[in-house]
Amino acid sequence: MTGRLTLPTDADIIDETIRLKNLLGADALRDCDGTEMPEALLSEPVKKYATYYTTRKDNAWAMKHPEEIQQEYLISNRITARGETLRIRLMEGFHTEQLKVNTLDDPKRWWEVIDRTTGEVVPTDAWEFDEASGEVEIRTIPYHEYTVSFLAFLIWDPVHMYNFITNDWKDTPHQLTYDVRQPKTKQYVKDKLKKWCEDNPHIDVVRFTTFFHQFTLTFDDKKREKYVEWFGYSASVSPYILEQFEKWAGYKFRPEYIVDQGYHNCMFRVPSRQFLDFIEFQQIEVCALAKELVDIVHSYGKEAMMFLGDHWIGTEPYGKYFAGIGLDAVVGSVGSGVTLRMISDIKGVDYTEGRLLPYFFPDVFCEGGDPIGEARDNWRKARRALLRSPLDRIGYGGYLKLASNWPGFIDEIQNVVTQFREIHENMQGTASYVAPFKVAILNCWGSQRRWMSNQVHHAIWHRETYSAEGVLECLSGMPFEVEFISFDDVRNGIPEEIKVIINVGDAYTAFSGAENWIDEKVLTNIRRFVDQGGGFIGVGEPTAYQYQGRYFQLSDVLGVDREMCFSLSTDKYNEKNDDHFILEDIDGALDFGEGTSRVYAQGGHYQILAMDGEYSQLVVNEYGRGHSVYFAGLPYSPQNCRLLLRAIYYAAGMEQEMKRYYVTNVDTEVTVFQKTGKIAVINNSAQAQHTELYIKGKCAYVLDLKPGEMRWVDDMEDR
Amino acid sequence: MTGRLTLPTDADIIDETIRLKNLLGADALRDCDGTEMPEALLSEPVKKYATYYTTRKDNAWAMKHPEEIQQEYLISNRITARGETLRIRLMEGFHTEQLKVNTLDDPKRWWEVIDRTTGEVVPTDAWEFDEASGEVEIRTIPYHEYTVSFLAFLIWDPVHMYNFITNDWKDTPHQLTYDVRQPKTKQYVKDKLKKWCEDNPHIDVVRFTTFFHQFTLTFDDKKREKYVEWFGYSASVSPYILEQFEKWAGYKFRPEYIVDQGYHNCMFRVPSRQFLDFIEFQQIEVCALAKELVDIVHSYGKEAMMFLGDHWIGTEPYGKYFAGIGLDAVVGSVGSGVTLRMISDIKGVDYTEGRLLPYFFPDVFCEGGDPIGEARDNWRKARRALLRSPLDRIGYGGYLKLASNWPGFIDEIQNVVTQFREIHENMQGTASYVAPFKVAILNCWGSQRRWMSNQVHHAIWHRETYSAEGVLECLSGMPFEVEFISFDDVRNGIPEEIKVIINVGDAYTAFSGAENWIDEKVLTNIRRFVDQGGGFIGVGEPTAYQYQGRYFQLSDVLGVDREMCFSLSTDKYNEKNDDHFILEDIDGALDFGEGTSRVYAQGGHYQILAMDGEYSQLVVNEYGRGHSVYFAGLPYSPQNCRLLLRAIYYAAGMEQEMKRYYVTNVDTEVTVFQKTGKIAVINNSAQAQHTELYIKGKCAYVLDLKPGEMRWVDDMEDR
Ligand SMILES: [Mg+2]
Ligand SMILES: [Mg+2]
Ligand SMILES: [Mg+2]
Repeated sequence: MTGRLTLPTDADIIDETIRLKNLLGADALRDCDGTEMPEALLSEPVKKYATYYTTRKDNAWAMKHPEEIQQEYLISNRITARGETLRIRLMEGFHTEQLKVNTLDDPKRWWEVIDRTTGEVVPTDAWEFDEASGEVEIRTIPYHEYTVSFLAFLIWDPVHMYNFITNDWKDTPHQLTYDVRQPKTKQYVKDKLKKWCEDNPHIDVVRFTTFFHQFTLTFDDKKREKYVEWFGYSASVSPYILEQFEKWAGYKFRPEYIVDQGYHNCMFRVPSRQFLDFIEFQQIEVCALAKELVDIVHSYGKEAMMFLGDHWIGTEPYGKYFAGIGLDAVVGSVGSGVTLRMISDIKGVDYTEGRLLPYFFPDVFCEGGDPIGEARDNWRKARRALLRSPLDRIGYGGYLKLASNWPGFIDEIQNVVTQFREIHENMQGTASYVAPFKVAILNCWGSQRRWMSNQVHHAIWHRETYSAEGVLECLSGMPFEVEFISFDDVRNGIPEEIKVIINVGDAYTAFSGAENWIDEKVLTNIRRFVDQGGGFIGVGEPTAYQYQGRYFQLSDVLGVDREMCFSLSTDKYNEKNDDHFILEDIDGALDFGEGTSRVYAQGGHYQILAMDGEYSQLVVNEYGRGHSVYFAGLPYSPQNCRLLLRAIYYAAGMEQEMKRYYVTNVDTEVTVFQKTGKIAVINNSAQAQHTELYIKGKCAYVLDLKPGEMRWVDDMEDR
Repeated sequence: MTGRLTLPTDADIIDETIRLKNLLGADALRDCDGTEMPEALLSEPVKKYATYYTTRKDNAWAMKHPEEIQQEYLISNRITARGETLRIRLMEGFHTEQLKVNTLDDPKRWWEVIDRTTGEVVPTDAWEFDEASGEVEIRTIPYHEYTVSFLAFLIWDPVHMYNFITNDWKDTPHQLTYDVRQPKTKQYVKDKLKKWCEDNPHIDVVRFTTFFHQFTLTFDDKKREKYVEWFGYSASVSPYILEQFEKWAGYKFRPEYIVDQGYHNCMFRVPSRQFLDFIEFQQIEVCALAKELVDIVHSYGKEAMMFLGDHWIGTEPYGKYFAGIGLDAVVGSVGSGVTLRMISDIKGVDYTEGRLLPYFFPDVFCEGGDPIGEARDNWRKARRALLRSPLDRIGYGGYLKLASNWPGFIDEIQNVVTQFREIHENMQGTASYVAPFKVAILNCWGSQRRWMSNQVHHAIWHRETYSAEGVLECLSGMPFEVEFISFDDVRNGIPEEIKVIINVGDAYTAFSGAENWIDEKVLTNIRRFVDQGGGFIGVGEPTAYQYQGRYFQLSDVLGVDREMCFSLSTDKYNEKNDDHFILEDIDGALDFGEGTSRVYAQGGHYQILAMDGEYSQLVVNEYGRGHSVYFAGLPYSPQNCRLLLRAIYYAAGMEQEMKRYYVTNVDTEVTVFQKTGKIAVINNSAQAQHTELYIKGKCAYVLDLKPGEMRWVDDMEDR
């Protein structure tokens, strides 16, 4: 088997590229940021991808049109006034090589000074910008705290700066940015793309990296990352765009819609109506303009591929306008099962491609690095998700020479590529078996941000989030069709086919839901849904909002509440009884990650399955004809996948369905392609595993799997 | 040395009482609930105390006047409506032997049905009480949750019920209650007290247990404690009293002021204006009526002593009206240093007395019990507080026979009593040395609830509270004058002599301060105070209120904030540097108890002294001329007393004052009586300790102390 594989190349590794291409059966080659596609390879019988940057790598243009350089809304440090005037130095804590205060547009029109002690906007006649010192002087109330929100030009492209610092580049000039949305640059970029297509007849795939607006990535005065929000719109602004927004939205724009008290609309914030409007507006404009570029590419007989990263802001792949771009493909980095599904579930393109880890960069291919271990770990997480929703292609990025020189690494990716092709061979484009009901993740973002919950920046581990993020990571490889629904969806009526709703996250975040939980429409619709036989699973601080004697507003459904010190005087008599369907497969200790302290069971219908001292960690509850399950946390692990699998079947009231297809060993999982009669059993662990495979409730196979093995067997029952 | 000691006695232990009285030098004997003072001892040359119950032990009266039985506001279970009517059984979950629905007063006037999903009161014409079934039927909105707040008669005195259950009494009749505030009972109780005084000429001290209203103590349907709030006013109500309250307050009473969403005004709740009004009203009335009883006692030449417990509601010993009662003494149970100070700091009485632990009850004096260990532990905590603010007397309670029969126990209390008398001998009524500035605890309760912060019921350990409670326990034995101030005190201007303000507790509780932290008056006054040289110490979630980009509103002063997921995209670069004055004495690991997760240092003026992974636990910050210290938690321990000592001197900017008197060993503490020239060095540990004693910054003594020893030396420097 060959194909479905993209390799990176570079000018200094021509022969080795050919050798590896043949060895691994690659059918595409690509350049990267900082590498070049060698002339000699252009005639190879494979697809050639070229990275294409619409917004940088043309400092001459940028310098000629400084007013069309990209801009970002920044918020100054918070400074407490000691007296009746205060001077705030805007660029304190920012890197002056990356950002420069916008002095071209009127500060009084576009900036905002806020008294953070009262939340009030300081009138524009109470402050002045002193361009010479770079300071804003404010008439203040002593001991109030102030911020200035202001516009700055992005004079060094953030990703270029990131790659420059990470790869320790020396003589490379800093790449300036320019804003394709602005009139002169728009025309220039379109013309330039045409010319480039003409000049590059051997390139088959134009890989846009990406379109127009970088996600928020800001560096501090020590050149360290200061702020990174992969979903951030802070660098997609300019007076030119904002005036259009005001016309479209029908109200005046405020910098606060973007800087958001200094939280910069971090995904965990419940998004304001105005920020949602801004996302909507940007999608409309960005997708329309992206289509113009894609049309140009197509007119030269080339494919257009979008990298889901870098300047992806406004393209929202699960938004209403994405399909309209007319892209041939999306490619993105696969850091986990969740990030794989974020790519592979995208509709409106012909194919999806995943860049597997590790990137061939010197931060991993170095003394003390473990690229083989990283590749295995990455593959084991990716594989379970692939079996549910396959990428069409995979590939790698970085310096091929590093991979080629690392003993054993090429063998490892050969194994990965072989397994990947086996999956496609066996599934033949058909869907895998899923349970006869849908599972919904409920949060403020809903379907617009599928597979994006409770994460900060891709699959990067955060102590604050991994115990919630794990729910999606588990689900990414489980036999359930997963919907992502918003509170408006719940208000409008929970769709018939959904049988289990999951709410997971920290109190007052967009993922838990905050003030949505004091909306009687939300509460009554969910209560009715469960009462009539539905399932509700809460993880962390589900339905949390302190109100009317409860912290978890659905404590009646969940059978638990959290002690916020207000009911310390109320005695609890929580006792564990771990004899339950959910725990039947589990031998060892349970892992709730960081967990959630102070949770206690209450009401008359609960059963506590796990406790930490007097706190409850895993609780089931009966509610009318329905069921709920509460987890104090659910980090990703094979064991927790099994817990969640059982919890979902229990919540759905469909325990008997679970052994339709089932493996006894918790470290293994089963995926079934009923149409082709093929079954994959995967070993998610680094040890050999023994497991039985059940089909229609009966043991059909007894299997011994090697570490990490994927074994294919036939679905005998259906033959 | 003899005196200052009260022993319990009983009818069956007359000779032994006399032997122990002589052995221990007791000068007072007492009866207890369930024991009797024997006739034979009435002629002993000691003071005789008699427990006196104003509200129970007279079932005949209670049964004759059922309308004057005490009442309690209860709130039913929260029940979710499935349809358009709902029946709530009021007594579900309560014990019908303790409480009985009040059917004498009009439910529509005194009860309240609330839709807890919306927070709205259900109109009285939308519900009916069905007396036959004990249910309230409500016209409901499907899937809304409802409660009924209602009045019930206390047909078994809660403390009598508690003692009955704890001591496994069998044939004792349940004692009914009656309400001394009501007209017939008031007269009856006064007359009865006069008669009792006449009938008991040998009794010297009438120990009121207590006056009129029991703190909230409710049992569930399994006779288990359901709710206990030592500070609770729920059982101090009746239509008779509430009508008076309405006249006094000028507004209509609502049951919600008492049941408080089901939280029953737990001390951790920020008290509502109406609840504070009610406390004020009850104090005025209770203290005036208590004075009438005390006057009667005095008219018979006897002393009046109040037990700080049981029916103490309305007497608030730090309230404005307490001194007006004219009591001779207060006695209370000493569970810790904090509870000792709660008694010993009371003004307006001639003397205070502490009931040391353990009580001579069979739950401790039993197989597997460790009464000697409990006595030692209790004494070590009590002793450090005594040295700062002495009780005038100590004593014990319970069954003397149990103590007398336990090998070694009498030796142990002989040791305690000897040390107690030594303290008085050496201090001669003079005050011990304190630092030349005051330390203030800031919370919503202020001076009205001195030594009562962050605790649930006396010194009972709660996992949720011990890490905050520890601050007061440490302070109870430290050389600082401690003020308790409210946010109104801060608004009105921080008193000159205060140099360090401490804010300790969980977010949104009365102890942290909740919405007070978005009051610009509070913020600016504290910022100015610190900027001008003051100190601020925060423990747990100080100044917490999510607002305008911050969770800790004084994050500028504290140098820390807590990550609530909204700034996860902001990089933190926290690094530890534990080279600091505060840690100079500390060798071992630090103990922050349950701690506070997700705290990070920020701003330009911090130094992190301790971390848990990437979270900061102990941080100092410079703010203008002032200093702050943040602790993630501070459970009581000798080491944490030392940490807090140093933190306070650091925060005050007075490090050089610390060695005015100082012991090098963290397990020891020093108390100095400058006027008598006596110094006590105590060993707070169960091991022998070696320590140096510094006076005026120089080593004056080198001491080897036995386990638990208290050593007296002379203050040579001042001689
Ligand atoms: Mg990248
Ligand atoms: Mg069931
Ligand atoms: Mg008691």
